Amino acid sequence: MRIAIYGYGNLGRGVESAIRQNADMELVAVFTRRDPASVQVATEGVPVYNIAEAAQHQDEIDVLVLCGGSATDLPEQTPEMAKLFNVIDSFDTHARIPEHFANVDKVAKEHGHIALISCGWDPGMFSLNRLYANAVLPQGKDYTFWGKGVSQGHSDAIRRVKGVKNGKQYTCPVEAALEAVRSGSNPELTTRQMHTRVCYIVPEEGADLAAIEKEIKEMPNYFADYDTTVHFISEEEFAAEHAGIPHGGFVMRSGVTGFNGENKHIIEYNLKLDSNPEFTSSVLCAFARAINRLHQEGVNGCKTVFDIAPAYLSPLSGEELRAHML
Amino acid sequence: MRIAIYGYGNLGRGVESAIRQNADMELVAVFTRRDPASVQVATEGVPVYNIAEAAQHQDEIDVLVLCGGSATDLPEQTPEMAKLFNVIDSFDTHARIPEHFANVDKVAKEHGHIALISCGWDPGMFSLNRLYANAVLPQGKDYTFWGKGVSQGHSDAIRRVKGVKNGKQYTCPVEAALEAVRSGSNPELTTRQMHTRVCYIVPEEGADLAAIEKEIKEMPNYFADYDTTVHFISEEEFAAEHAGIPHGGFVMRSGVTGFNGENKHIIEYNLKLDSNPEFTSSVLCAFARAINRLHQEGVNGCKTVFDIAPAYLSPLSGEELRAHML
Repeated sequence: MRIAIYGYGNLGRGVESAIRQNADMELVAVFTRRDPASVQVATEGVPVYNIAEAAQHQDEIDVLVLCGGSATDLPEQTPEMAKLFNVIDSFDTHARIPEHFANVDKVAKEHGHIALISCGWDPGMFSLNRLYANAVLPQGKDYTFWGKGVSQGHSDAIRRVKGVKNGKQYTCPVEAALEAVRSGSNPELTTRQMHTRVCYIVPEEGADLAAIEKEIKEMPNYFADYDTTVHFISEEEFAAEHAGIPHGGFVMRSGVTGFNGENKHIIEYNLKLDSNPEFTSSVLCAFARAINRLHQEGVNGCKTVFDIAPAYLSPLSGEELRAHML
Repeated sequence: MRIAIYGYGNLGRGVESAIRQNADMELVAVFTRRDPASVQVATEGVPVYNIAEAAQHQDEIDVLVLCGGSATDLPEQTPEMAKLFNVIDSFDTHARIPEHFANVDKVAKEHGHIALISCGWDPGMFSLNRLYANAVLPQGKDYTFWGKGVSQGHSDAIRRVKGVKNGKQYTCPVEAALEAVRSGSNPELTTRQMHTRVCYIVPEEGADLAAIEKEIKEMPNYFADYDTTVHFISEEEFAAEHAGIPHGGFVMRSGVTGFNGENKHIIEYNLKLDSNPEFTSSVLCAFARAINRLHQEGVNGCKTVFDIAPAYLSPLSGEELRAHML
């Protein structure tokens, strides 16, 4: 199957590397907002085009993987590109998913394409696990923990603080809260009890460290409701220890069965990811395979991970899956 | 939807209790091999029939849940009942799944029914997690650990040893092996390194305890390849501490991404279940919902959990799922 990437940042490069792990996939084009001549892709022989040229390559591409941001890029790009291609995105603004779905669905149906939105790990693999666990244990309670991992939004927020040269924020699940959920006690957990926030800051020379720490810890929405730790480190340490974009988290459901709810069950799904964008890209590629197949079967319109039978994700046949994975 | 239970043992009773947790399901009949007059079901007003009467109730049932054993019951019952009903079973003899699938598929298609086989947690939820994780991380290694939980086959084996009045065997994952996998080191693990076996034995009066322990520990296939611990306990302790049928386990995939495989990722799914049959029953009910819907859409033939889009499992609509679970 012929895949093209739309937006060549961390996620786009992740898709490019994920394609190499899938023998049935080929990268056929990269679209960029930049001057194509300025963009060097890692895969030899792959053409780079400006996004304005997308329509000219409609017949060369089976699935276009949209690698832009959820705030402003995808709400425009996904419906626009669904006119031309089968598309998949990682739109992750949970509250705006219904609206995005409706916009994309309309266009995809009008143009006979299939589109899959909000694919990745949350939304994505975590959503799937929430759904499965809720269907299996109707009487229960859901818990989602994130981390340990880098929050882009919170890192951006601390970098805007006066006196901060560079900074990164890690969201960390509280181990005691995880254990309380695993015990089956169905705890009621506050925001503060579930996660802590840890910041690594490279201060500007002569900056008021106490003022930086105070401003961060009291920042409404971002930090005020959490126990936050601020570490000041050197530029060298920052480069050596905090260059990566790890993430992960836990989806748990604690439920009961039996005529009197007498038996407890815990379902837990957890991810530990060295690279958030590369894992997201890997999920995108698996679902790109699925929508390509579904489109060949005549399916169109907007879908989510909930609508895709798992067998479509695998390069193996039904016989192989039943013999080796069931 | 109208559900009937075929075989009223631990699993059948589990299905009966799970139906009560699902407002869209109703138990309409229980079929038994025993004299129906001798079987008292927990749900008031539900008729009990002999299995020979199944054909007379064809129009009253949307999905028949087969609750027999995999060794001899299901290979006969599932194809036979797929002539009359939409059916679902928990056939768990992994090596014979392809053969069972073919037998059931043929009959189900001939009679316009849908059948879902090998549903539960392994095969079932564990299989789904193996498939998803393999599709997302093509370069990686799978690990499945079971326990801590009761193995019926091993418990039967120790109860056949001379001098054993009663006994139960727990399969336990080795914590150090779990941690080695979680570390991303992709260990090669032997049978002995992954699981231990722990037996609780009520000996007959005057039994030769040393001989019992030796016979168990040296039993080929069942125990010889494992580190096995044998505890002798009183009948009272056995009744108080070992009456349950807990189980669970871990499905893990350790993989890499990046142009040079430089980033590691661990996907882990784990279950901790107070009641193995009740959890299996709960999975069966969720998938019974799915096949009933698919049948209403005109789908027939044999399916597995791999073929079912997750949205079909939930009583919620697509809109509700996207708004609240994605």
